[in-house]
Amino acid sequence: MSDQMQRIALASRPTGAPTAENFSFETSVLPTPGPGEVLVKLHYMSLDPYMRGRMDDAKSYAAPVAIGGTMEAGAVGEVLASNSPAFQPGDFAFGMFGWVSHGCLPANQLQKVDPNQGPITVALGVLGMPGLTGWYGLNEHGKPKAGETLVVAAATGPVGSMVGQLAKRAGLRTVGIAGGADKCALAVETFGFDVCLDHRSYADAAALREALGAACPDGIDIYFENVAGKVLEAVLPLMNDFGRIPVCGMISWYGGAKGADADLTAPMIWRNILVKYLSVNGFIIMNHFDQYPVFMKEVAPLIASGEIRYLEDIAEGLENAPAAFMAMLKGGNMGKQIVKLV
Amino acid sequence: MSDQMQRIALASRPTGAPTAENFSFETSVLPTPGPGEVLVKLHYMSLDPYMRGRMDDAKSYAAPVAIGGTMEAGAVGEVLASNSPAFQPGDFAFGMFGWVSHGCLPANQLQKVDPNQGPITVALGVLGMPGLTGWYGLNEHGKPKAGETLVVAAATGPVGSMVGQLAKRAGLRTVGIAGGADKCALAVETFGFDVCLDHRSYADAAALREALGAACPDGIDIYFENVAGKVLEAVLPLMNDFGRIPVCGMISWYGGAKGADADLTAPMIWRNILVKYLSVNGFIIMNHFDQYPVFMKEVAPLIASGEIRYLEDIAEGLENAPAAFMAMLKGGNMGKQIVKLV
Repeated sequence: MSDQMQRIALASRPTGAPTAENFSFETSVLPTPGPGEVLVKLHYMSLDPYMRGRMDDAKSYAAPVAIGGTMEAGAVGEVLASNSPAFQPGDFAFGMFGWVSHGCLPANQLQKVDPNQGPITVALGVLGMPGLTGWYGLNEHGKPKAGETLVVAAATGPVGSMVGQLAKRAGLRTVGIAGGADKCALAVETFGFDVCLDHRSYADAAALREALGAACPDGIDIYFENVAGKVLEAVLPLMNDFGRIPVCGMISWYGGAKGADADLTAPMIWRNILVKYLSVNGFIIMNHFDQYPVFMKEVAPLIASGEIRYLEDIAEGLENAPAAFMAMLKGGNMGKQIVKLV
Repeated sequence: MSDQMQRIALASRPTGAPTAENFSFETSVLPTPGPGEVLVKLHYMSLDPYMRGRMDDAKSYAAPVAIGGTMEAGAVGEVLASNSPAFQPGDFAFGMFGWVSHGCLPANQLQKVDPNQGPITVALGVLGMPGLTGWYGLNEHGKPKAGETLVVAAATGPVGSMVGQLAKRAGLRTVGIAGGADKCALAVETFGFDVCLDHRSYADAAALREALGAACPDGIDIYFENVAGKVLEAVLPLMNDFGRIPVCGMISWYGGAKGADADLTAPMIWRNILVKYLSVNGFIIMNHFDQYPVFMKEVAPLIASGEIRYLEDIAEGLENAPAAFMAMLKGGNMGKQIVKLV
């Protein structure tokens, strides 16, 4: 066992898309767990779009990552040492360790993961924060009703694929949006979307709107928002009266909107909310971890039985996390993006 | 009793602010009530900002008024003839008659008004659609809690003054926005706002935001939206986490936004909704008339006792309705705008 650990720090703030220069690979001494803390050797870490937001120096859910600070991430691994009776060496645990090879956290910030119940990677995706985000946002703010129509983008990602599958099980027509023919085929064949549109096939929001209109002959009742930009502009005029828009992300606008989406103005948004009596709710799952046991009780059996499916895209090595992250932001991943650390 | 009636029709659609040429004064034969219908001679009609939206040829709550069609309005008056057992000549009734001297409506579209319970004009304002709008939007979507801070514009109007008084009674800090020193004094002295800001005193949204920040030291929990534009731009960055924005109007944007509010972009709205977990709900009171008895039971006694106050601005004569309407859209009225017809 090494006396050292590795981490990836924020070297500088990106303008627009992150580049390799925004990250630095650092080596430091392995930390010693303090009172009540647990030392974990991480096996897998998660890469998610929200991390892009943390790289900006702007008010968000949480304080931004400081320059020189460790990039944030959820990660899962094996306990090496514990100063808490709740964890023993050899146990597996999930926590917000960051982009690191090892980390210490207080035991009450960790969740035990049972490696005999299936691959521990699911704690990062379908049974982790992304899965909980889709489940919570759809049920709490989407309020799905059988016979309605739902639209979600990033349809093959860990949030979109959960939303689509849960909505389909609830009796809704599900229309996905994804980037590329291969992802669209995956959305329909693996995740059961009724239709999936390739946003790259449409030159602008108007063209995408026309295709969405054809795919949603009864209009759109729920738009699960995780991308904003062109998709939002295409969707808004198609929303039905009393429609719902849960907002958990806006990946196309992280780092600022670059003069695109010119017809998507503040008055257009506000007018649609008013004249169609829309309910628009922003949320971030860290405020709703109290719902985790309810989610697990309902969804874990559906994962075990294969009734809800998931897909993972696993990169190798902490040193490759920045490249995997940058590729993911451009849609290069196929399924939940994870980094294997050991 | 004349055999004729008068009405005001939409002569042409306005571009921006309406002008006298957009209206025409018409005389026609007094209608005869059909089966189940009631003929009413109107005494008072209501003028409200939503009517501006109806003049545009665009999707709104309802179909726009057709060229040559009668302008819409709620009005209250005396029954002249009735083909329904529910109404007798001499009864008073409220209904959506329009800008007219007389009108026929089915009895089931009318509400009886008791002239012995107070002035019949309250059926157009504090105990009519504007009062119900404020009460419903505040309770259903604003979810006020004691100790929170509420902001509402058009604070001396029939919706804003109801919202402010109900919120104050619920233990909130209430901050109004109005146009002019006289309205601001009225808001504080008559309607009990803790502070009222004169939006005309602030050159732009940034200056208004600074004043609002000082008036709301604990941030804003509820922004009751009826104006949009500069006020919305000033308010959004001051919203607290888990804030609520009921949206019942956007008077500053009717007829289109004129290149103002340049910093109020779609991404700014969406980002605030996301990172502060806001709940934004559009609504229009015509979908919630089933709540009217609940409202009356709760609020009518508070009007009778003087615990909730109201103010009316009464213009004289149907022929002067267009001028009163145009003045109201520019903030020229003081209290609920009504037109006396007889």
